[in-house]
Amino acid sequence: MPVTTSVALFAPIADDLNRVEELLRSIADVEYAPLRTMLSHVLGSSGKRLRPALALLSGKYGTYNLDRLVPTAASIELLHTASLVHDDVIDQAATRRGRATANSLFGNKASVMVGDFMFGHAADLVASTGNTRLVSLFARTIMQIVTGELNQDLTAYDYSKGLRDYFARIGGKTAALIGAAAEAGALVCGAPEHIIAALREYGFNLGLAFQIVDDILDFSGNAAVLGKPVGGDLWSGTLTLPSLLFLERYPGRDNPVFRFFRSKRNREERFAEALEAVRTSGVLDDASNVAREYADRAVALLGDLPNPEGVKEALVDLAEYVVTRAQ
Amino acid sequence: MPVTTSVALFAPIADDLNRVEELLRSIADVEYAPLRTMLSHVLGSSGKRLRPALALLSGKYGTYNLDRLVPTAASIELLHTASLVHDDVIDQAATRRGRATANSLFGNKASVMVGDFMFGHAADLVASTGNTRLVSLFARTIMQIVTGELNQDLTAYDYSKGLRDYFARIGGKTAALIGAAAEAGALVCGAPEHIIAALREYGFNLGLAFQIVDDILDFSGNAAVLGKPVGGDLWSGTLTLPSLLFLERYPGRDNPVFRFFRSKRNREERFAEALEAVRTSGVLDDASNVAREYADRAVALLGDLPNPEGVKEALVDLAEYVVTRAQ
Repeated sequence: MPVTTSVALFAPIADDLNRVEELLRSIADVEYAPLRTMLSHVLGSSGKRLRPALALLSGKYGTYNLDRLVPTAASIELLHTASLVHDDVIDQAATRRGRATANSLFGNKASVMVGDFMFGHAADLVASTGNTRLVSLFARTIMQIVTGELNQDLTAYDYSKGLRDYFARIGGKTAALIGAAAEAGALVCGAPEHIIAALREYGFNLGLAFQIVDDILDFSGNAAVLGKPVGGDLWSGTLTLPSLLFLERYPGRDNPVFRFFRSKRNREERFAEALEAVRTSGVLDDASNVAREYADRAVALLGDLPNPEGVKEALVDLAEYVVTRAQ
Repeated sequence: MPVTTSVALFAPIADDLNRVEELLRSIADVEYAPLRTMLSHVLGSSGKRLRPALALLSGKYGTYNLDRLVPTAASIELLHTASLVHDDVIDQAATRRGRATANSLFGNKASVMVGDFMFGHAADLVASTGNTRLVSLFARTIMQIVTGELNQDLTAYDYSKGLRDYFARIGGKTAALIGAAAEAGALVCGAPEHIIAALREYGFNLGLAFQIVDDILDFSGNAAVLGKPVGGDLWSGTLTLPSLLFLERYPGRDNPVFRFFRSKRNREERFAEALEAVRTSGVLDDASNVAREYADRAVALLGDLPNPEGVKEALVDLAEYVVTRAQ
């Protein structure tokens, strides 16, 4: 997300998001120099900051308290970043967001440890809010993320896994944390329970839409804009919504995706054929429609929630942004 | 530790330790089958349970409350086990305690995730005590463990690193968690602050003694009893107290440890020479004396603490056990 876009979307909490950013930067300020270098690299990769922004926005539904919200929001981003670092170790990814991954720079060993350090720091930040329900929320979210990631790992190249499995997987690996972010701010600011629940469901559905769009962009995007190679999921054997829809629509052993998965020789050639076939088949539009459905459901879940300081409008705009973004 | 020994040492809390064991077993009972298999394997490797026992014992210094102590003690064992799983991924270890490691059975990818899952579960258990100070204690302990492990990883084969570095390393990777275990029970049971502090220091010094003895056993132990090959630290380039004392006593480029570290050919032969030289040099006795000093210091730190239900005696016996054990 370009800065201008985030400023527009996150207007109600833009200044406070800077405080989260400052806190995140300060986390790299540790005594042990090799750890400092690694943390600076990992935390310096400024992502969309979607999750901390959501946490701050949702705080407006309670007694907005930055002493609690800033560590809460930073903690979510830390959890997210830690899970990406472990994910990159697992996927042996070389780049993310156009930058070299921690594992490619520092090795797998140190990267596992840096992720663990961030988990620890995230827990310490959450503890500083004095809210054990929030600790529990984040703890369970980690467990969901892990289950989602494991599922993705263990079903690679397994084309018998269908759509139901895909939604379970992205629910765990992406939507759970975005849902937790949307829940956390309201929770830590003491919002009413029905609002906390609505925001969690909003976030979960937003997260599904977000991941589906990610999976579409993996096929349709521009490598330079994405900061990673196109078709990476397919190449690593991860079936996502577009490839699953494609397999469903063209069953049979001569489906190019199926042929690529079975190929032992000419893998690059088989891969290029499969990628092109998916891109030109129309399934990307179908997948976009599914993403749009989830974004609409997210907005509908906001229902008759109030609109303190324009926050509800920001949440609606965010859902629109998620399904129209190009990176 | 054979069961008979632990029963004798942990007599004041033996029944309650079984409840911790039950809780740990129940953690593997997750819906997702591949995760269940992995957790069962990892948690089924019954270790010494030193850390949960310490947490329970220290609870006797406050208002002994099993509803808080059992999750606290289980959480510490989970943190310990998770860090071992990640450690084994990092060290590419094939066996631990005589059993195949998670990474050798399930691969590095899944092992990183299983460790993360246990971190999450540990945080959820701690949160259930409602004590955010305890969450913070455990969170900071993870950060210390990581720093210790990273230091070990990044200084492998670096013989310029001296004794000071060794103590910083084992302080982080082992003593911090044993200290936290000894602190946690008292903390969660509302013991007086001066007792909490004394128990933490006792545990930290006990932990240093424990790790030094581990490092001695890596040279002097029996592979069958230890459940891992003898000399593993030296082989992987990790300098521990025995090899550091040996390098200090026999400086110069013809020191067998130094020669092994520099060797590019005949590594097995150079390794066997170095191992034998350390074993017969007398430094193992010197290292034992250092371990004994820390155990004595641990006992001295108990000072004039009371002896509720014989707990102080158990803590004194534990210190004696730690420096006389053979596995």
